This record gives sequence, structure tokens and C-alpha cells, in this order.
Amino acid sequence: MSREFHVYPIGHVRSGIVDMASAPRQGREAGLVSEIEIYPQYADALDGIAGRARLLVFTWMDRADRDMRKIVPRGIEGAGLTGVLNTRTPNRPNPIGLCNVELVNVSGNVLTVRGLDAIDGTPVIDIKPYIRELDE
Amino acid sequence: MSREFHVYPIGHVRSGIVDMASAPRQGREAGLVSEIEIYPQYADALDGIAGRARLLVFTWMDRADRDMRKIVPRGIEGAGLTGVLNTRTPNRPNPIGLCNVELVNVSGNVLTVRGLDAIDGTPVIDIKPYIRELDE
Repeated sequence: MSREFHVYPIGHVRSGIVDMASAPRQGREAGLVSEIEIYPQYADALDGIAGRARLLVFTWMDRADRDMRKIVPRGIEGAGLTGVLNTRTPNRPNPIGLCNVELVNVSGNVLTVRGLDAIDGTPVIDIKPYIRELDE
Repeated sequence: MSREFHVYPIGHVRSGIVDMASAPRQGREAGLVSEIEIYPQYADALDGIAGRARLLVFTWMDRADRDMRKIVPRGIEGAGLTGVLNTRTPNRPNPIGLCNVELVNVSGNVLTVRGLDAIDGTPVIDIKPYIRELDE
């Protein structure tokens, strides 16, 4: 229980989303285009990624309340309190965000993606190729 | 660049997988059944999860090589070196594992799941409901 692991940002998001209330699900629903800047020391790790159609983008939702255990989920009429792990709220013990995005372009260490739900400046902590047979 | 975030295990995996070489993809392909024990202080955060059919399980692959930037992917004949972020290798800057699993049973703070690719004892750092319209 006393263990902890250290996560380092590998980049950050550049998007037009400025506040949390409007961010969740908006990216995908609105087809918003964002950029992900990967820091130079990780740029080599992107090699070959331009061939991918979809990516899983992992972010660190640094404005989240990590002590919350239950929440009333948004957008479900009449819903009562439910555990945060049963929702996609950013408010969870480890505020890791996951977005399935369309890869639009790769230019050096900058990825252009469509459908990312992330506030401008959000740290990116991992990127994986979306592989239908594993992820669906 | 000097920023870091702290991740705390919320539980761990109990599985029959004892080494990394046999772990990747085996869980899902073999339909392996595993258990996830969530620690008592996070048990409230599971409330309502028994109604879910599929979950996304986030693990911390603590045996990974975090300094690796390129790798020869497994299982693709003739493949050359490619960036780790273009693969699902555990060896990546932040070794976060993602598995889409079937939820078989919930008993208190223990989840029984089918299709988890994780070595026995692997720390679990997040669980989210799989929501087709977001994740597919």
C-alpha cells in the first residue's frame, strides 16, 4: 500500500478545450482536432506511428479530485451515486484519461488527432496503437 | 520535463501467468480467468460495477524497461525496429498496461475477469467501464 510509481509526461495536448465541464466526450462527439506535442527525448519512440489509423491516448487529468470514491454520473437521468471506477469521471484514485482518437497527421514530434477529449496543456503519459482485436 | 505524477496501486492481479514472455495477448486469446483484488480503501469506488459486461483494466507493468525507445515487435515476420509507442510492448516510458476484459463476477472487493494479460501480482492502477461508443 505504501508503494507508488512515478509517471513522467512524454508530451502535452494543444487543444481548444479550456475547462473540464465542457471537455468530457466533447472531443469525440464534436470531432475536435487537437495536437499532441511529444517531447524531444521521446520522439524516437514515435517511429512508424504515421502508419496507424487510430491511437489510444493516455493523459494525466491533473485537475481531478483523487479522493472521490462515489459520484453522480453526468448525462444519465435519475442516476444515483455510483463508484468512480464504474464511471469515466476524471475524479478517480489515479486520474488517467483514455481517448480513442483518429490520427490525422504526423509531423516530426507533433501528432494531429481528431476526437481527443483533453483540456489544453493536459500531460500525455502514453500512446498505443489501437488494435481492434485487442481493444474492441 | 521535471514534472512527475504519483500513481498508487488500487489493487493487484491474481493470475496463473508467471512470466512476461508468455503473458502478452495470451490472456485474451486463451480466455484466461483471473482475479483482481481491490484494496479495502478503494472498495467503495467499485459500487455499481457488477452491472458491467466489459471493463478496461489499467495495470502497471513493473518489470518493464522504461528507457527503451525502439523495439522489434513480436509476432510480425520480417518487422524491423519501430518506436515503442507504435507497439503494445510493456517496455515504454510509462509502462501502463491496458486490457479489455469480460467481467465474470464481483464478490466484495474481488473482481473475476476473463481475458486479462497480466502476470500474477501485477499492480492495478485504474478500472473503467468499457463503453462501446467511446472506445471502439
